[in-house]
Amino acid sequence: MARTHFLSDLLSTLFERRYRAGTTRDRRSAVELARALLTGVGEVSGLQMARSLIERYEAMDDAEKVDYFEFMANELDIDLPAIEEAIRVYAGDRSRAHFDGLQRLCQPKRQELLRRINQIPGATAKLVAMRVDLQKIIREHPDLARLDVDFVHLFSSWFNRGFLVLRRIDWETPANILEKIIEYEAVHAIDDWDDLRRRIEPEDRHCFGFFHPVMPDEPLIFVEVALCRGIPQSVQEVLASEREVLPESEADTAVFYSISNCQQGLGGISFGNSLIKQVVENLSRDLPHLRTYVTLSPLPGFRDWLEAAAADIASPVVDDILAIAKTASPGDIDGLAAHSETLRHLAARYLVEEKRPSGQPLDPVARFHLGNGALIHDIHALADVSRNGIDQAFGVMVNYLYDPGRVEANHENFAGEGRIARTRMINGLLKAGIPEKNQRKTANA
Amino acid sequence: MARTHFLSDLLSTLFERRYRAGTTRDRRSAVELARALLTGVGEVSGLQMARSLIERYEAMDDAEKVDYFEFMANELDIDLPAIEEAIRVYAGDRSRAHFDGLQRLCQPKRQELLRRINQIPGATAKLVAMRVDLQKIIREHPDLARLDVDFVHLFSSWFNRGFLVLRRIDWETPANILEKIIEYEAVHAIDDWDDLRRRIEPEDRHCFGFFHPVMPDEPLIFVEVALCRGIPQSVQEVLASEREVLPESEADTAVFYSISNCQQGLGGISFGNSLIKQVVENLSRDLPHLRTYVTLSPLPGFRDWLEAAAADIASPVVDDILAIAKTASPGDIDGLAAHSETLRHLAARYLVEEKRPSGQPLDPVARFHLGNGALIHDIHALADVSRNGIDQAFGVMVNYLYDPGRVEANHENFAGEGRIARTRMINGLLKAGIPEKNQRKTANA
Amino acid sequence: MARTHFLSDLLSTLFERRYRAGTTRDRRSAVELARALLTGVGEVSGLQMARSLIERYEAMDDAEKVDYFEFMANELDIDLPAIEEAIRVYAGDRSRAHFDGLQRLCQPKRQELLRRINQIPGATAKLVAMRVDLQKIIREHPDLARLDVDFVHLFSSWFNRGFLVLRRIDWETPANILEKIIEYEAVHAIDDWDDLRRRIEPEDRHCFGFFHPVMPDEPLIFVEVALCRGIPQSVQEVLASEREVLPESEADTAVFYSISNCQQGLGGISFGNSLIKQVVENLSRDLPHLRTYVTLSPLPGFRDWLEAAAADIASPVVDDILAIAKTASPGDIDGLAAHSETLRHLAARYLVEEKRPSGQPLDPVARFHLGNGALIHDIHALADVSRNGIDQAFGVMVNYLYDPGRVEANHENFAGEGRIARTRMINGLLKAGIPEKNQRKTANA
Amino acid sequence: MARTHFLSDLLSTLFERRYRAGTTRDRRSAVELARALLTGVGEVSGLQMARSLIERYEAMDDAEKVDYFEFMANELDIDLPAIEEAIRVYAGDRSRAHFDGLQRLCQPKRQELLRRINQIPGATAKLVAMRVDLQKIIREHPDLARLDVDFVHLFSSWFNRGFLVLRRIDWETPANILEKIIEYEAVHAIDDWDDLRRRIEPEDRHCFGFFHPVMPDEPLIFVEVALCRGIPQSVQEVLASEREVLPESEADTAVFYSISNCQQGLGGISFGNSLIKQVVENLSRDLPHLRTYVTLSPLPGFRDWLEAAAADIASPVVDDILAIAKTASPGDIDGLAAHSETLRHLAARYLVEEKRPSGQPLDPVARFHLGNGALIHDIHALADVSRNGIDQAFGVMVNYLYDPGRVEANHENFAGEGRIARTRMINGLLKAGIPEKNQRKTANA
Repeated sequence: MARTHFLSDLLSTLFERRYRAGTTRDRRSAVELARALLTGVGEVSGLQMARSLIERYEAMDDAEKVDYFEFMANELDIDLPAIEEAIRVYAGDRSRAHFDGLQRLCQPKRQELLRRINQIPGATAKLVAMRVDLQKIIREHPDLARLDVDFVHLFSSWFNRGFLVLRRIDWETPANILEKIIEYEAVHAIDDWDDLRRRIEPEDRHCFGFFHPVMPDEPLIFVEVALCRGIPQSVQEVLASEREVLPESEADTAVFYSISNCQQGLGGISFGNSLIKQVVENLSRDLPHLRTYVTLSPLPGFRDWLEAAAADIASPVVDDILAIAKTASPGDIDGLAAHSETLRHLAARYLVEEKRPSGQPLDPVARFHLGNGALIHDIHALADVSRNGIDQAFGVMVNYLYDPGRVEANHENFAGEGRIARTRMINGLLKAGIPEKNQRKTANA
Repeated sequence: MARTHFLSDLLSTLFERRYRAGTTRDRRSAVELARALLTGVGEVSGLQMARSLIERYEAMDDAEKVDYFEFMANELDIDLPAIEEAIRVYAGDRSRAHFDGLQRLCQPKRQELLRRINQIPGATAKLVAMRVDLQKIIREHPDLARLDVDFVHLFSSWFNRGFLVLRRIDWETPANILEKIIEYEAVHAIDDWDDLRRRIEPEDRHCFGFFHPVMPDEPLIFVEVALCRGIPQSVQEVLASEREVLPESEADTAVFYSISNCQQGLGGISFGNSLIKQVVENLSRDLPHLRTYVTLSPLPGFRDWLEAAAADIASPVVDDILAIAKTASPGDIDGLAAHSETLRHLAARYLVEEKRPSGQPLDPVARFHLGNGALIHDIHALADVSRNGIDQAFGVMVNYLYDPGRVEANHENFAGEGRIARTRMINGLLKAGIPEKNQRKTANA
Repeated sequence: MARTHFLSDLLSTLFERRYRAGTTRDRRSAVELARALLTGVGEVSGLQMARSLIERYEAMDDAEKVDYFEFMANELDIDLPAIEEAIRVYAGDRSRAHFDGLQRLCQPKRQELLRRINQIPGATAKLVAMRVDLQKIIREHPDLARLDVDFVHLFSSWFNRGFLVLRRIDWETPANILEKIIEYEAVHAIDDWDDLRRRIEPEDRHCFGFFHPVMPDEPLIFVEVALCRGIPQSVQEVLASEREVLPESEADTAVFYSISNCQQGLGGISFGNSLIKQVVENLSRDLPHLRTYVTLSPLPGFRDWLEAAAADIASPVVDDILAIAKTASPGDIDGLAAHSETLRHLAARYLVEEKRPSGQPLDPVARFHLGNGALIHDIHALADVSRNGIDQAFGVMVNYLYDPGRVEANHENFAGEGRIARTRMINGLLKAGIPEKNQRKTANA
Repeated sequence: MARTHFLSDLLSTLFERRYRAGTTRDRRSAVELARALLTGVGEVSGLQMARSLIERYEAMDDAEKVDYFEFMANELDIDLPAIEEAIRVYAGDRSRAHFDGLQRLCQPKRQELLRRINQIPGATAKLVAMRVDLQKIIREHPDLARLDVDFVHLFSSWFNRGFLVLRRIDWETPANILEKIIEYEAVHAIDDWDDLRRRIEPEDRHCFGFFHPVMPDEPLIFVEVALCRGIPQSVQEVLASEREVLPESEADTAVFYSISNCQQGLGGISFGNSLIKQVVENLSRDLPHLRTYVTLSPLPGFRDWLEAAAADIASPVVDDILAIAKTASPGDIDGLAAHSETLRHLAARYLVEEKRPSGQPLDPVARFHLGNGALIHDIHALADVSRNGIDQAFGVMVNYLYDPGRVEANHENFAGEGRIARTRMINGLLKAGIPEKNQRKTANA
């Protein structure tokens, strides 16, 4: 046996963690296999059964999957009378055995089933995919919704922050991972390999992702960062294909201009705040001349809100903005340009004053960054004049600033009292108001 | 920022997963920190609190640890009336929300606490150490025993077989890991670096261990393997310091002569059966000329059993054996040699016929290997004439055979009906019986 | 200092071996720097001077480069009278000192200059690029041609086979290396990333390259391999975008269908034969069910030869073939199809009988594979109907077979006596001859 | 074929670069094989012949090796008349072909032979070992000395600084490399694994070595570094087994207290100056709070010099020192302690004033560090009171200071004019002189 090196071993093991289809001859149905897997004493035949079960599942059509999830929901549910009895016993004597018994009863058997399936190398990714199926099925079968709780419970444990690995993604990253970056980019679509290259190869562009050791080919979430001198005014500037590359040593600002979750099946397990925090840490260690960490973020709900609120606001200027937006095509910015200051004012109101019933900001991106301890730094009009940018927010974007010295206090104040940290500039915008009459210079003026 | 390569990144990240002590200025007590950590909304300050909590815990003396565990046991226990209420609600409507609510109540808050602590890189090893403390404390404070259930629950999930990595351990393995092999070897002690080297460097000696990506320096369990021609008769032969190395290509038998668990804090989470199974798989792939996979195992309870059973057996030969063993010193084998066949017969009886009340074999090593699907292949007298070997089993050792083609059936029969797979040789030994009179040639004969 | 792991260190070092431009303030000219570098006693300031010299060189225009190479050719040439004197001394006393003195004189100082430049991490690639410049300049300045001898001498030593590393190139290979595969493919152009992917990702497609540790991002040479059942008849079949992937386990034949040298600056340093030999070794170890190792190779000189030989051959069929080829467009195969057998016969003659004055085969690809010990296995018409395939060889391709058991004998016979190993099929083709009259079915027949 | 990852491949390739003995059936003698290898056209059978040649060589006894080297020296020598003829031709026309022809003749065939042997993976280490044999044989056969020139020529090219890799060596380094550190330490012997550990594990102790990619298990040279507050006065202080570890962050001084060459067969190829320079660079990048880089070095020729010079100096104090040293045992420092200042003065004279005929300092360690651009900073008596320390230098040691800002100037001045950079302290010691009468307090005083 050729001696392969220790670390090489580890690497290969990790990188061969993909699930390998076997050719199982076990003829039992998925339900039979699940039952057998749960009652099996040892592990010897368990791995084989788990593998067969995965194959059986993957061969199912939609209706069969519904049946299978029904089986999980019902037969593998918790036994309520048994729990009640165990509670009585445990209340009487809080012994280890009684507590253990109660805990086992409280945990539905389907959790144990999923855990046993997960013993196969590569099965984790299969279970993440299974949850995607489940989420789709739940829409038609809401009674199955509680199964999702078990997936979330297990995934939270397995994808614990402590197990995640941050990796830089650049032009030296394996192609099979890069193609997933192209696929998963959710904010500013990547057109092709050349576009991708412009975002990860130049020395003033970085990209970082979180990975899990058992899914080494699959980014969980990634963030794209532009190193700049000063804060850019628009995403067009950041993504311009002909721009001049800034020498890394001259940059003073890191701009997080896109964050994308990659795994639909890991929805509800939050990685984003850790990611930004960790990237800020890495960048400030490696590039000590960086002074400012800021996002360039969309306001995904701004236009919807303004359309709904327009009647209340009752301003001809707002009406004009809405009218322009209706006919605007990407890059066609003259009309909106005339209303830049109004848009900035309205966006500030939207971000700072509009709340959900729970008291949290209406805008989901604002909730995310403010919850992480960022503050609202500035608002830019005409900052994303793509189709999507105009449709969502009339082209407006916002900078959330991560100031390492204030992040903790911002977070506490926001989590505790809902206080939204912001600069004077934002306060100024809030006060600015909407001009009384429409000052737009029309084309024929 | 110097571009470091993708995999290099991953490696470094994994290998810098050690916990790094900070210099936290948080003055809150462990209990206050635990409460804050549990109520904290976001993660921003959570990591810092978790780090402080670990430091606070590590600074505690034994009495303070007891107090802290009492806090975990009581204040962070489950709320029984609330669970009962949630059961009623869930019984009425098995909705996702109701199920989620019930599940959250069933899980004691201390589990969530441990999970949040585990978000810090390197914290897993700290929690494993915490359980070692707990196990010690439980001996005096049995009321805290139920805390152990939570540790086992979490560790089972985190150390799921699917997350473990098998690595070969050899003379090219980093020294910090090798010193742990010396430290943890539990069956046949390793005297020093030279002894270690004899066990891992020659081409007819292999060693494999399971590791977890977040504790890359810590073997969880390891097995030592000797490649031989035929099955060796004794461990002396295997460990002889002056033996001739067998060319790998001439070996036909792999002998598993030592399996050691390394992490006391992971007691109750079984890795052993996976390990053997995986090593057999690797060896048979890389060394296709191997024909036999067999252990050379101790019988740790044999002498205790025989001493207890001697009165019932009422044989002068047995009495003589017990008498010899009392005065035998390591390597002093003449006396026992005279009784080799009797010892083999008695060992066969002990292994095959002596049971615990549960019906399982009395001998723990037999339970382990038979449970894995091995069969009892042969029994050797004078096979471990060290102090420990004589004290445990009069020097007797046993071969359990792993026959890939029969492992599954053996396992099923054993798990189902308690049937103990064995060779005709063992049946022969069972029938042989004890000679009627003592045929030992005494020194003065 | 964060402890980074041993291997991680090695990796990063290798992967940061790129040359890093400094900002040298040394104002000396390249010639002055070269002189200083050669007289410098120690190394302390040498690295700095070498770096400055590289920068100075890279800033030169073409005329300046000519001047610089003139300096190398003349001032740094060998000193003939001094060598003659040293020969006399050495002839009188073959001492170490005399031999050393003679050797130093025989080696032109420019070799030492290049060696000192090469001490800078990353400089090797710079020197390879310098030779590309030189080769271009030599065309106009043939007096500089002897400089190339020094480059070849040094590169042969540095790129010694023993220092090369064979790596598999697949879809998990870093993108910066893959883009070079696209760029360097010299035989069957790769259109884009999708085309590349079809050639390296499916399990029946492999690609291997040689790399040198100090130029880890630069393939030196690579080969593309298709795993097939039986030997394919055409490259169209191999490269078809819609073909069905063959399970690796069903393949019995490995087809080397493209070999490309990547580094113009390493011309004359042969890697190809090692590469094929090594790939055959790796494949036969990993895929023991492969039976046949064969190329699908172009005949780059076939058409030129036939055009030149047509007058001598004086056959209407040959004239017709030449006429068809003149107007044929890619994929337009009807005309040529009518002459398949004639083309195969002519190609066999061309490969087996046409020689250079040195006695070696006229065709360069034939020289290469026959020199490696391959034999001519079969010839296919209409096997490459691309523009290039028709232009070079009327679409004809040839299989050279690597039979591990016969490679050595073939090689010896070819190297010694010029004997060309071939199958009976080829002998049959040789005998077949050209049909007397043109049997082409014309379109209007 | 299991897909193994790109880098994994590279790693394994590098780490399997060890030479693997084959079982060659080639019956030719070494001389026959060498001739065949040199005339062989292709590479196909060359690798096999090279392997056989190595095996044949390794099986030789000493007399046979002498014969083999005689063959290399004579039959594979250069052809002087042919060179003279080629010079005449080249003088007439400096064409590429003529230059190439001349170069080929100037290079003895044995160089080409060694180069062809080196094509086998792992052969480089074999050739390094071959030179060790040669060096031993040369002592008895001085006529073979010129062969060493060829080895040096090739090794200088292969072990070019640009191909070396600097690695940190610590407690996580593979054991097979660590045992070589124990073996090769040449200055302050390492007693056992515990002693080794004390030198590489604590955070205030570092060790770095140079490695070559084709001999990844073999350090070429390594240096041991102690991080200190201030400059230590003695090596006892540095190596004390019970010392308190200094937190890395509190260190301000890096002390290079031991540099060891590892490969006798690479004698004459200098790595030391690069190593120190590179380590200073790495440390100053990673530990920016370090202010001072200094050695704690032996004066290996001091005692020999003083014994020879004693007659000229004619001082009773010097005579007394010599007398004490004769009877002193390790650690017995009282006698020498009385003469500390005299020893420092004498050592300063020895270092600064005593020269070889060439004008270079007499002391080899001084030559090395001064040649690297260091300056003499301080001299300590009783600084190495081991047997070796007293035997070489009465326990005296010296600090050479590497001041990055002055290294280049120091080096230039030393290389150019032989100026020895030193502190005022050294100048003071030079002036101090020897006391007129012996002030030693005798034991009976």
